[in-house]
Amino acid sequence: MENPAQIAELSHTLIAAGRLFHQRGWVPATGGNFSARLDTERMLITASGCHKGELLDADFLIADLDGQPINSARKASYETLLHCQVYRHDPAVGSVLHTHSIANTLLSRRFERIHLAGYELLKLLPGISTHDAAVDVPVFENDQDIARLSAAVDAHMKKVPQTPAYVIAGHGLYAWGATVAQARWRVEALEFMFECELQASRLEEPK
Amino acid sequence: MENPAQIAELSHTLIAAGRLFHQRGWVPATGGNFSARLDTERMLITASGCHKGELLDADFLIADLDGQPINSARKASYETLLHCQVYRHDPAVGSVLHTHSIANTLLSRRFERIHLAGYELLKLLPGISTHDAAVDVPVFENDQDIARLSAAVDAHMKKVPQTPAYVIAGHGLYAWGATVAQARWRVEALEFMFECELQASRLEEPK
Amino acid sequence: MENPAQIAELSHTLIAAGRLFHQRGWVPATGGNFSARLDTERMLITASGCHKGELLDADFLIADLDGQPINSARKASYETLLHCQVYRHDPAVGSVLHTHSIANTLLSRRFERIHLAGYELLKLLPGISTHDAAVDVPVFENDQDIARLSAAVDAHMKKVPQTPAYVIAGHGLYAWGATVAQARWRVEALEFMFECELQASRLEEPK
Amino acid sequence: MENPAQIAELSHTLIAAGRLFHQRGWVPATGGNFSARLDTERMLITASGCHKGELLDADFLIADLDGQPINSARKASYETLLHCQVYRHDPAVGSVLHTHSIANTLLSRRFERIHLAGYELLKLLPGISTHDAAVDVPVFENDQDIARLSAAVDAHMKKVPQTPAYVIAGHGLYAWGATVAQARWRVEALEFMFECELQASRLEEPK
Repeated sequence: MENPAQIAELSHTLIAAGRLFHQRGWVPATGGNFSARLDTERMLITASGCHKGELLDADFLIADLDGQPINSARKASYETLLHCQVYRHDPAVGSVLHTHSIANTLLSRRFERIHLAGYELLKLLPGISTHDAAVDVPVFENDQDIARLSAAVDAHMKKVPQTPAYVIAGHGLYAWGATVAQARWRVEALEFMFECELQASRLEEPK
Repeated sequence: MENPAQIAELSHTLIAAGRLFHQRGWVPATGGNFSARLDTERMLITASGCHKGELLDADFLIADLDGQPINSARKASYETLLHCQVYRHDPAVGSVLHTHSIANTLLSRRFERIHLAGYELLKLLPGISTHDAAVDVPVFENDQDIARLSAAVDAHMKKVPQTPAYVIAGHGLYAWGATVAQARWRVEALEFMFECELQASRLEEPK
Repeated sequence: MENPAQIAELSHTLIAAGRLFHQRGWVPATGGNFSARLDTERMLITASGCHKGELLDADFLIADLDGQPINSARKASYETLLHCQVYRHDPAVGSVLHTHSIANTLLSRRFERIHLAGYELLKLLPGISTHDAAVDVPVFENDQDIARLSAAVDAHMKKVPQTPAYVIAGHGLYAWGATVAQARWRVEALEFMFECELQASRLEEPK
Repeated sequence: MENPAQIAELSHTLIAAGRLFHQRGWVPATGGNFSARLDTERMLITASGCHKGELLDADFLIADLDGQPINSARKASYETLLHCQVYRHDPAVGSVLHTHSIANTLLSRRFERIHLAGYELLKLLPGISTHDAAVDVPVFENDQDIARLSAAVDAHMKKVPQTPAYVIAGHGLYAWGATVAQARWRVEALEFMFECELQASRLEEPK
C-alpha cells in the first residue's frame, strides 16, 4: 500500500518548506508541524519533538486520519488531530502546514479575528480572485486539550466553510492547500499580510 | 531570430534577482514578476503562477510588446501589460522588475505618493547625481483590469516623463533600468528608502 | 581521558549553533560564547576573542569547572565563570549558550525581570507543560567583575532553583539544557518570546 | 612592489565581509565601499559602481593615499578620499569599511551625534574595556564634494582623536580597525547598537 516514491517526494517538499520557514523565523525551537495527504485515509506527518527547520527523512511517520501512527514506533506530532480535522473536513486538501511567527503570535494575542482587506495577496486564498475582497482569519483560544481544540475548529469550519486558515492564540497559524506548494504559498501570503497588519497597527494612534 | 545564449544569460540573471528578493521577503507566494527586453519587439518574462524566488529556466516565456506569448503554450504573467507599457514608453529600458514588500505595501496603502528626499541612494535613480534631491514615486490604485491600470500608468508617465518608478497600492513596486543589474539596484535602493520612510513614520507623533 | 570523537561532535554542534545565531543577528562581533560539558569536571568552551558565527575547531578549548584551561595556551572566554556556575549548580546541564540579541539587550535595559506568559513556546522551558503558565527571566546588572557577577547569579539560582535562564542587562542571554540541541531550542524559544514582548510594548500606550 | 598573495588574501577577506553586509541589508544597490592598507603609501579599494555584496577580484584596485589609482584603468570608489583621510590620520589603521544601513541612515537624519552608553559591545571600540562607558559617534552633513567632506572629518578627528567611527547623514557609517576582521567586528558592534538605539527611540514618548 505504501508508495516509497510518493513518500520521498512529499517528505522532500516538506523538508524544503521547513528550511524556508526556519530562515523566516516561523518555526522556532521545535514549534510548527507539517503534513501531506497520502490517500483518502492516511497522511505523512512530522514526528513529535524535532526541529522543523532541520527535518530529515526519518522525522516523518505515516498516520491514519484519527492520528494513529501506522507501522511506526515514533510519536506523531502533538497536534496531529488538528491536521486530521482539516483532511476530514475537505477531501481536496492535500497538505496542512502550521507555523509560529512573531506576527501571528502577537496579532492572535490581541484580536479575536484577523481582518485582511485590500491586499493583492488575498488572491492566493481559496475562492478569491481580486484584491478588492476581505477575509476574517479566526483566532481560537489556545488549549492543551487538542481533541477539544480540534472540535472547536471543526464546529467553526462547519459553520463557515470558506474559512481560509486559522490561528491559535499565542501559538500559530494553520493553513492548507491542494498541494504542499499551494499550502506553502498561502502560509507566505498570510504571514506577509499578518506582518503588514502588525506594522500598520504601530502607525496608528495607540488604543 | 532567437538567440539561446542571450535568453540563457537573461533568465539566469533574473533567477538570481528572484532568489535575492525572496531572501529579503519581497516576492512572497507567487507575487512579483520580472522581464528583460530581447529586442525592439520582444521580451523574456516570467510565466504566470510560479514562485519568483525559485525560478527555473522553464518558468520564462517570450512575448511581444502587446503581451502575446510567442511559440509558447504557457500563460504570460498576469501583469504583462504593465511590463509592455514601460518598454514602449522608453526604448532604453532593458528590464522591468516588480516586487511586493512589506514597506511598499504599507506606504502605498497610506499615501498617494511616496516622497523621498535627502538620501544618498537617490543617486541610483535616473537623472539624479546628488543626495540633495527629491523624487515622488507615484502610487496608483490597485485594479484587476490590467489594461485599464496600464493606461493610467501610461498617462502619468507621458505627463511626468522623469517618473523613476511607481507603486500599486497594497500590491507592489515596478522599477526598471537599462539592464537587469541596474533595475535590480534600483529595486534595492527604493526598497531601502521605503523601509526608512516606514520606520521614520513610527518615530513621529501618530497622525 | 580525552575522547576525540566526543569533542569533535560537540564542537561541530556548537559551530552549527553559532552559524544559526549569527544569521539571526544574535552574536554580533565577538559577542556570545558557547560550551558543552565533557564530564563531571570538564567542559569544552569557545576561546576568547573569536567570532561565534564563524567558529573553527581550533576556537575551542577544554577547561575545568573553575574555568582553568587544560593543556591549552589559549585563553578561555572572558565569561567562563558564568558557564562554570551553571554546570556546578545542576549536574544535569550539558550545554550553556550565551547570545546578544537586539531584543534581549533592549528588554534588559528597561526591566528588572522579563515576564513571559501565555506563549505556547513556554513549553520548551524546564518543568513547563502548558502555555497557561508564566515565568520570570531575571535580569542581572552588567558587571565586568565576572566572579562577582557569577556569585550574584548563583545566589539567585539557589534561592529560585527553577530559574529557566537569565539575562545580563545590555549584554545578553544565558540559557542551558541537557544537550546542545535542547539549549539551542531554549535560546530560540526565549529569543522569540523576547522579540514578541519587545514588539508588543510598541503597540501599547507609551509609558 | 606588489605582493599578489597579500592582495589576494585582503580582497578575499573584503569579499566575505561584503557578502555578510549584503545579507544584513547594509550595502544596498551599489552603496558602501571597502579598503585595506597595503603599506605606508598604498591601499586596496573597491572600484566605483560595483555591488558590494557580490564583489569579484576584478572589482578591486590599488590606489595611493591621495586616492590616485596605480596601474589601473578603473575608477576608484567615489568616496576614496574618506578612506585616505583615515589611513593618513592613524598609521595603525589597516582597513576602512563603509556601510549604508537602515538604522545608521535614520539615526543620522535625526541626530547630530549618536550617543552610545552602557552596552557590553562598546568594548569592541578602541580604548574601551568596560560596558560602563559612553561614546559619541559624530554625524557629518552629507556633501557631494568629497574633498570638503574629508577635510571636515579630518578637522574633527584632529580635535577628537579618540573618535571611534563616524556617520554621514542619510548616507552611512565609516568604521576602521587594525585589520579587516577588527574593522568588520566594529561595524557589526556599531550597527547592533544603532539598531538598539533606533528601536529604543520607538519605545519612548514621541518627541
